[in-house]
Amino acid sequence: MSITRPKGFVAAGVKAGIKPSGKPDLALIVRTAPDGPGAAFAATFTTNVIVGAPIEIALGQRAAALAARVNASGAVHAVKAFLINAGNSNSATGQQGVRDAHECMAALATALNCERDRVMPSSTGVIGRLLPTAKIVDAVPALVQALASGPQADASAAAAIMTTDLVPKAAFAEVVIGGAKVSIGAIAKGSGMIAPRLDSASGPPPPSATMLAFITTDAAIDSPTLQTALDAACGASFNRISVDNHPSCSDTAAILSSGLVGPPIRASTREFAAFAAALQALCEDLAEQIVTDGEGATRTFRVVVEGAATDADAERMAREVVNSPLVKCAIHGRDPNWGRIVTAAGNAGVRFDPLQASLAIGPVVVYRSGVPLPEALVDPRLPVAMASKRVDCVLRVGTGPGRAWMIGCDLSAQYVSINADYTT
Amino acid sequence: MSITRPKGFVAAGVKAGIKPSGKPDLALIVRTAPDGPGAAFAATFTTNVIVGAPIEIALGQRAAALAARVNASGAVHAVKAFLINAGNSNSATGQQGVRDAHECMAALATALNCERDRVMPSSTGVIGRLLPTAKIVDAVPALVQALASGPQADASAAAAIMTTDLVPKAAFAEVVIGGAKVSIGAIAKGSGMIAPRLDSASGPPPPSATMLAFITTDAAIDSPTLQTALDAACGASFNRISVDNHPSCSDTAAILSSGLVGPPIRASTREFAAFAAALQALCEDLAEQIVTDGEGATRTFRVVVEGAATDADAERMAREVVNSPLVKCAIHGRDPNWGRIVTAAGNAGVRFDPLQASLAIGPVVVYRSGVPLPEALVDPRLPVAMASKRVDCVLRVGTGPGRAWMIGCDLSAQYVSINADYTT
Repeated sequence: MSITRPKGFVAAGVKAGIKPSGKPDLALIVRTAPDGPGAAFAATFTTNVIVGAPIEIALGQRAAALAARVNASGAVHAVKAFLINAGNSNSATGQQGVRDAHECMAALATALNCERDRVMPSSTGVIGRLLPTAKIVDAVPALVQALASGPQADASAAAAIMTTDLVPKAAFAEVVIGGAKVSIGAIAKGSGMIAPRLDSASGPPPPSATMLAFITTDAAIDSPTLQTALDAACGASFNRISVDNHPSCSDTAAILSSGLVGPPIRASTREFAAFAAALQALCEDLAEQIVTDGEGATRTFRVVVEGAATDADAERMAREVVNSPLVKCAIHGRDPNWGRIVTAAGNAGVRFDPLQASLAIGPVVVYRSGVPLPEALVDPRLPVAMASKRVDCVLRVGTGPGRAWMIGCDLSAQYVSINADYTT
Repeated sequence: MSITRPKGFVAAGVKAGIKPSGKPDLALIVRTAPDGPGAAFAATFTTNVIVGAPIEIALGQRAAALAARVNASGAVHAVKAFLINAGNSNSATGQQGVRDAHECMAALATALNCERDRVMPSSTGVIGRLLPTAKIVDAVPALVQALASGPQADASAAAAIMTTDLVPKAAFAEVVIGGAKVSIGAIAKGSGMIAPRLDSASGPPPPSATMLAFITTDAAIDSPTLQTALDAACGASFNRISVDNHPSCSDTAAILSSGLVGPPIRASTREFAAFAAALQALCEDLAEQIVTDGEGATRTFRVVVEGAATDADAERMAREVVNSPLVKCAIHGRDPNWGRIVTAAGNAGVRFDPLQASLAIGPVVVYRSGVPLPEALVDPRLPVAMASKRVDCVLRVGTGPGRAWMIGCDLSAQYVSINADYTT
């Protein structure tokens, strides 16, 4: 179970006929718990300049949720349902795209007997095609009819948001808050156009496919506090993976709380820290599922950069490494061609002294203080490290405190064939 | 003919046994014309933090050449020969790499009866392996013996610098300077780790494989003036192509003049403008040859971004588009999936208004003022444009004066197979 295991949620997934394959393509998650200060909404979205019409709308919904605390209005007007379609991203569709999303939201709101703005839309799929709104509107009655809690409902929703994903993605976590066992559940999808750089509503933008992640929790937490936890969790999870270095116009991670379990979680408390850590672990789990199922991926690799002046510098270098097609091909071929790794780091626009640089692949140091270690190439542990499902690389570039990691996946011929003929 | 068609140069290429394939791997270009103020040297190098030992040395040689004007010493100590090997890049090799390069330079200098520092070394091939200096030193006598001018010598040198190139690359241009017909010849190589961001010695660094280009001219021009022309030419040619978005640690473009033809070319004159234009056209020709022969490439595509606030903004967007694996796969599959192009531009960190954005593929406008044009997808000219050897895309993002272009190549399964098993 995932999104309906926390108390106060139902979900469904149905076929609306948007995907040419005829597979399920319309999902719904609804909070059934009553409104209140602990029943909140938070979300993060792509930093692409081009954003889908759903995100244009959802940005306003997020602003409303964050403003609610100031008004002490109990977040009554916050989002309480996610309506998600796959097969069409409703992006690069101009004002018509916004009208189309509104029409779908309105149809669902009528069926749920709530205001239109309490439905957050989310769309993934081909870009630059008008949304087939009639198909979605026509499917709303069956979708609402199918709403339920339990493993079946969770699985239906997870399947309906898939695009090129080979497997559905879900996660679940529990954390004790004030003696009560709080649940967090989630579904997510990848698996191409994946290099999320989600924004942050609670602080300065973090450095970072369509990836979508929808999370529920029965914790009692207000929207601004929930947003703070989500921003931090996304920065340490989704923003740390890359399949193809192409952030989508539709990337979204959104969370609803029902407030049904445990005491209110206040910002900057021990309870908040516990909840935030659990949320982050859940997002890390989902992020890893997404990159592992990256289009054409057979293996993943994790690049840790240490000793940089700042974490941001380290991240730029790690990002350059996981996005280098040459490094990705070497990982695919189990080829310990480590020169590609150090030169990729050298392209990040960050100065460092090569004579202070060292690289380890798994347990084997292949390059130390700017000098290659020829004996490493005949170390029997090196082919073992290169053949593992998760290749681990640690690049030290100096003695500074900056550190960051990124996870990428290999580049295969399968990636090319998936993406050379996607729309047509 | 190419590098020995300008008066005052000889060249050769031989087999030194560095490449496991046993193919030619050692090339030499020597200026035979006497020293003098019009016999000059200029070069540009990768901006990667990690640079090969040859570039560490050559950076000093360039500084010496540029300083020569100040000393009015007639550039006597400037570089007069390029010694180039393929099969080993002598990069990430620490101080041993510098000693190895010096040893090869010294062996050649003895044979040519000149100072060691008049030989510029250049190496391309696998990274992080010590240079097999003995093989190079042993091959020097045969290399010097083979020096000649004419098509055979040019072709031998061009072949000896190849790595994964399928075809040798050469170019030739003529320009009339003060009534005299000045020649410019060049050889170059690609074809992976290609996304040059060559530096600029004559001004601020330009906004941005191993690509190598060696150019000769019989024009009479001093080193600083030649450097100015080369910087501008590289900025508009090599720095405008990308095969795989991974600038190499060995990227080099270098030029020698012999001063044997025409009057001295002074900076900021009409003659300089004519020479610089001819040099730029030659470099554009070479750059296009390199990207066309990019690893696994079957077709190229040119992205023009117009209407940006600045040229630098436009370049960032064009660069993001040509480097998107999703765009490259769409080009490979002749798939008019233009949403990938506009969203790639949206990831460049440059703000623009999507409602002012338009995109044309060949003659077909597919997206105008932020709205998709569905009729474009059934326009019979669109599949023709997508199937051409050079797909042309023009993205307008506003009404600003900024404009830039980049040329990329498609991403094929062949690229993966070339790079998944390169060192082993």
